[in-house]
Amino acid sequence: MTARSYEDAKEVARANLAFYRAFEALEPSQMEAIWLNEPYVKCVHPGSEMIVGFDGVMASWRAIFQHTQKISFSVHDIDVRVQGDLAWVTLTEAVETHFSANERGTVVAATNVFERRGGRWLMVLHHASPLLRRVGLEAPGESMPGGEGL
Amino acid sequence: MTARSYEDAKEVARANLAFYRAFEALEPSQMEAIWLNEPYVKCVHPGSEMIVGFDGVMASWRAIFQHTQKISFSVHDIDVRVQGDLAWVTLTEAVETHFSANERGTVVAATNVFERRGGRWLMVLHHASPLLRRVGLEAPGESMPGGEGL
Repeated sequence: MTARSYEDAKEVARANLAFYRAFEALEPSQMEAIWLNEPYVKCVHPGSEMIVGFDGVMASWRAIFQHTQKISFSVHDIDVRVQGDLAWVTLTEAVETHFSANERGTVVAATNVFERRGGRWLMVLHHASPLLRRVGLEAPGESMPGGEGL
Repeated sequence: MTARSYEDAKEVARANLAFYRAFEALEPSQMEAIWLNEPYVKCVHPGSEMIVGFDGVMASWRAIFQHTQKISFSVHDIDVRVQGDLAWVTLTEAVETHFSANERGTVVAATNVFERRGGRWLMVLHHASPLLRRVGLEAPGESMPGGEGL
C-alpha cells in the first residue's frame, strides 16, 4: 500500500465511523451530512428492501430516529478498500437498541460504500443485514432463510 | 455519461449477469472464474455472517451448489455505478430454489462489487439479504428484525 492510499484508507475509515456516530446521535442533520445528495444513493436496513435516492433514504433515517430512544454500535472486522475516488467498507455491527419498553442486542453484517467528492468521502450505500444463523456451509442456497415470509 | 463510462457500465452489467448464470449452473469452476482470487473478497449469503477470502467464499459456493437441485434468478432494478477500476451494482433478486423435496420463491436485496484487473471485471463482494418485511418507515431501528435469534 502506498503512503497515499494509506491516507485515503484512513480518511474512509473516519467517514465510516462518523456514520455510526451520526446514527448514535439520532440527529437527522448529522446523518444528512454523511451522505452524498444524489438520486442513486441506496440504503438497505436489516431485513428491508432497498431504498433508492437521497430523499427516501433520509426519510427512513428520520423514521428510525423517531422510534429509537437510544442506540449504540460496536463495530468489528472493519476492512476498508479504496480505488481512486470510490471505497467499500465491510464490517460487523454489534448493536444495542433501546426503544419504547424494549432493549435488544443484535449482530448485523454491513457493507458501506463511499464516493469522494470535492475531497470529502460521502456515503452512497449502506447495506445492513441481520445475522439469522451461523455461517452456513450447510445452507441450502441463496433463498435461505427468512425470505419465506414474503 | 461519457461513451467510455457507458462501455464500462455495460461490461460490469455483463459480469454481474455472468455471476447469476454461474449460480444457476451450480458449477464451482464457473463460479470461481467470476471472482477475484484475493484474501479480501467477501460474501454474505442471506441471513449469514460475512465470509472473508477467496477460499472460504468458494467453499461456501460448493456447499450451496451441493445442496441445491435447481435455482433460477430473475433480477430487477439493476443499477451499475463505475468509478475507474471499481464498480458497485445493486439489484433485487427474485429467486426460485429447488432442493430436496422443497421448492421456494424468495426475494433478496443484493449489492455486488467488482474490481477491474487486467481488463476483466471480477467480483470482490456479494452481499445478499433477505426481505423480511416491506420497507420500514415504521422500523424501530438498525436492530430489526431477525437479529434477535442469535
